[in-house]
Amino acid sequence: MDAFNSLLLTDLYELTMLHGYYQQGMQQTASFELFFRRLPPARNFLLTAGLETVLDFVERARFSEPELDWLATLGHFPRDFLDHLADWRFDGDIDAVPEGTVMFPDEPVLRITAPLPQAQLLESRLMNLVHFQTLIASKAARSALVAPDRLLVDFGLRRAHGAEAGLLAARSAYLAGFAGTATVLAGQYYRIPLFGTMAHSYIQAHDSELEAFRSFAAAQPDNLVFLIDTYDTEAGARLVARLASELRADKVHIRAVRLDSGDLAEHARRVRAILDSAGFPDIGIFASGNLDEHALKDLLAAGAPIDGFGLGTRLDVSQDAPALDCAYKLTEYAGWPRRKRSEGKASWPGRKQVWRRYDAAGRMCGDTIALDGETTAGEPLLVPVMRAGRRTAPAEPLAVGRARAAEQLAQLPEALRSLDPAPPYPVAFSSGLRQLADALGR
Amino acid sequence: MDAFNSLLLTDLYELTMLHGYYQQGMQQTASFELFFRRLPPARNFLLTAGLETVLDFVERARFSEPELDWLATLGHFPRDFLDHLADWRFDGDIDAVPEGTVMFPDEPVLRITAPLPQAQLLESRLMNLVHFQTLIASKAARSALVAPDRLLVDFGLRRAHGAEAGLLAARSAYLAGFAGTATVLAGQYYRIPLFGTMAHSYIQAHDSELEAFRSFAAAQPDNLVFLIDTYDTEAGARLVARLASELRADKVHIRAVRLDSGDLAEHARRVRAILDSAGFPDIGIFASGNLDEHALKDLLAAGAPIDGFGLGTRLDVSQDAPALDCAYKLTEYAGWPRRKRSEGKASWPGRKQVWRRYDAAGRMCGDTIALDGETTAGEPLLVPVMRAGRRTAPAEPLAVGRARAAEQLAQLPEALRSLDPAPPYPVAFSSGLRQLADALGR
Repeated sequence: MDAFNSLLLTDLYELTMLHGYYQQGMQQTASFELFFRRLPPARNFLLTAGLETVLDFVERARFSEPELDWLATLGHFPRDFLDHLADWRFDGDIDAVPEGTVMFPDEPVLRITAPLPQAQLLESRLMNLVHFQTLIASKAARSALVAPDRLLVDFGLRRAHGAEAGLLAARSAYLAGFAGTATVLAGQYYRIPLFGTMAHSYIQAHDSELEAFRSFAAAQPDNLVFLIDTYDTEAGARLVARLASELRADKVHIRAVRLDSGDLAEHARRVRAILDSAGFPDIGIFASGNLDEHALKDLLAAGAPIDGFGLGTRLDVSQDAPALDCAYKLTEYAGWPRRKRSEGKASWPGRKQVWRRYDAAGRMCGDTIALDGETTAGEPLLVPVMRAGRRTAPAEPLAVGRARAAEQLAQLPEALRSLDPAPPYPVAFSSGLRQLADALGR
Repeated sequence: MDAFNSLLLTDLYELTMLHGYYQQGMQQTASFELFFRRLPPARNFLLTAGLETVLDFVERARFSEPELDWLATLGHFPRDFLDHLADWRFDGDIDAVPEGTVMFPDEPVLRITAPLPQAQLLESRLMNLVHFQTLIASKAARSALVAPDRLLVDFGLRRAHGAEAGLLAARSAYLAGFAGTATVLAGQYYRIPLFGTMAHSYIQAHDSELEAFRSFAAAQPDNLVFLIDTYDTEAGARLVARLASELRADKVHIRAVRLDSGDLAEHARRVRAILDSAGFPDIGIFASGNLDEHALKDLLAAGAPIDGFGLGTRLDVSQDAPALDCAYKLTEYAGWPRRKRSEGKASWPGRKQVWRRYDAAGRMCGDTIALDGETTAGEPLLVPVMRAGRRTAPAEPLAVGRARAAEQLAQLPEALRSLDPAPPYPVAFSSGLRQLADALGR
């Protein structure tokens, strides 16, 4: 994964700024915070993801000699500065909310405190990692909330935006509650359960559908899911019922059929009836094809007898909101709070912590963004995850983040669990923070 | 770029199907075609991109021993099949339209003819590569058409969907006519010109804006673009004018100022007036901040004196159409044409070629999709790019594809060059193709 780990995964301006800092000797401690400015209309909350990949990146981040030699060819940077970059390491601190935490606009999800050039250089890749994974986890969580007792599988690699998007989408969807992915490499990298059976081309390559089903049953007797819509869905279901009787004699069990086109609710009902009347109520029905959380909700509301869903394109590109408004802003340098006042993009100064309160039923009911060190009601959400360039604990297994996500989703206020836009969750700014902002000029 | 080149960048079902083909001895020649089913409302054409990355991938694609050992742990595949995969190579043929070709729905943009297991396995990654790059090139082309004489720069890495998306978006935008990118690694990989200066954090880290500008001028005297909206845009412009007079004495030239917030047209006019009246008409104005082709069109229509634009999120995620409906379908196996008849997703059988006609003014005026071997008016668009697993020519430099894209965009019918939806471009199906489809059953 070389390209994924290169420090050249950055914007040119990070390097020109580092050159300026180098010349001016500006190496004092800076704090940057990563947060989301606002939610898209179709999101009531964010489910954060990506922290573990950030820590992996930060731990390994170095410039290689060939990279520095190549930078020299650009003509922008003198050799003494590039030699100085050869020693670039991150030895600062990171505080962050753990993966699978529910968060809201303006709340810092990650805070870096380090010598200015270290914290500055990480900006582009950190945003690239946290933005995308939070985007997909937040999208996937909506399907998990709508269909909590169905098998949900990520099918999106082919239309994800490149290789890493496919891998990280699989990881983020699993974190949010999906059962697994079809993407094999994501199974290897992240130990995510893999799902997958056959494409239409498998059926078409055989002289008949029955021949295709038979050959597949011989090859994958323990993983038998038949795609039945290549020619005619109900005819495919009758074929499966016939084959199921044959295979029963050989103790081979058909797990499910897959529908991929047409009116899925209607087909599912007919296919269910065909399989049931043939004596196979245990053969499941799996559906795919342009699905998202709204389609799942409608299918379940219609009582469609579907046991599992494959979600592809609309999940992996977060079709209804393909980007979030996130930012990485300097909040303190050399002991002094800093803020930006650009129109419509002003930021809150100072190092911050987020405090969350819960109601008697254990549901989250209000957050306060405060200055680090202020005492406020609730529980603090940001925790130390890196000190002096080292993780404060071993890498967190994905299963732990996944369990946390499930718990956090269960703690959401009821209105926020809906697919419909809900009134904003209450996020307040502490008096200390407001006083500081006023003192620095609004 | 290991992860980008792994054959495990595939869906599990490709491997289960290969296992079936292996058991059945189905190794005869298959043809698959990659095409787009329909255009999003906000696209009048597609600009194809990604072929060179596909050929790179195909040439190198192998299973490694650790990958096969890991696949064995899944329990789905017997060892003899995995040993067989160790010899997997692509030694088939690829015909494709070159990068930077304008294409329309249903037209194959890439055709693979190879032993079935070779052509099957490539499906997921080929779609992943061609879909995304065509998506971004088609989006970027709209800005290139709207603002042909302005400097357009990709700024999207931070909100692109992962590392590869950032790299390939930079490449695709450059192919479509952009001047360059801020993404440093894309500069190294693809030799794309790099642009970039400073972020707000650079200004904020200094005790004053003037101090920040001075320190930056000392570090980057040949690349001086000042971001002037951190506190007050017009005050920033006056500061730049003052500094420009000082720097003139040292023979240092300020190239431009950058605006990143507020009403860009209004700020640009005021900033232009400030710089002009101070005697610096040669200092350019560069703008960024939530820009897309519609914003560019409006700014230019309003006569905003802006010389260049940075496009980020909305370009790199193709915000108004974050995915295209593309498919990779088996059209022939063992000498016989094949087709899928799924509801709403039926495909055209047989190996195909696309023929394009031009009017007297040299504008493209109609295409015909025909069976390979049929004679039809016009010029054929698919050309041999790989034979027996080897490229038919050395890798095409990106600059060649970029020149082709410019020529193709110039040959678009006038209505299709607009940002407004145009009537569909005429694409016909040959009589031979229609007869074959009828013979196989609609």
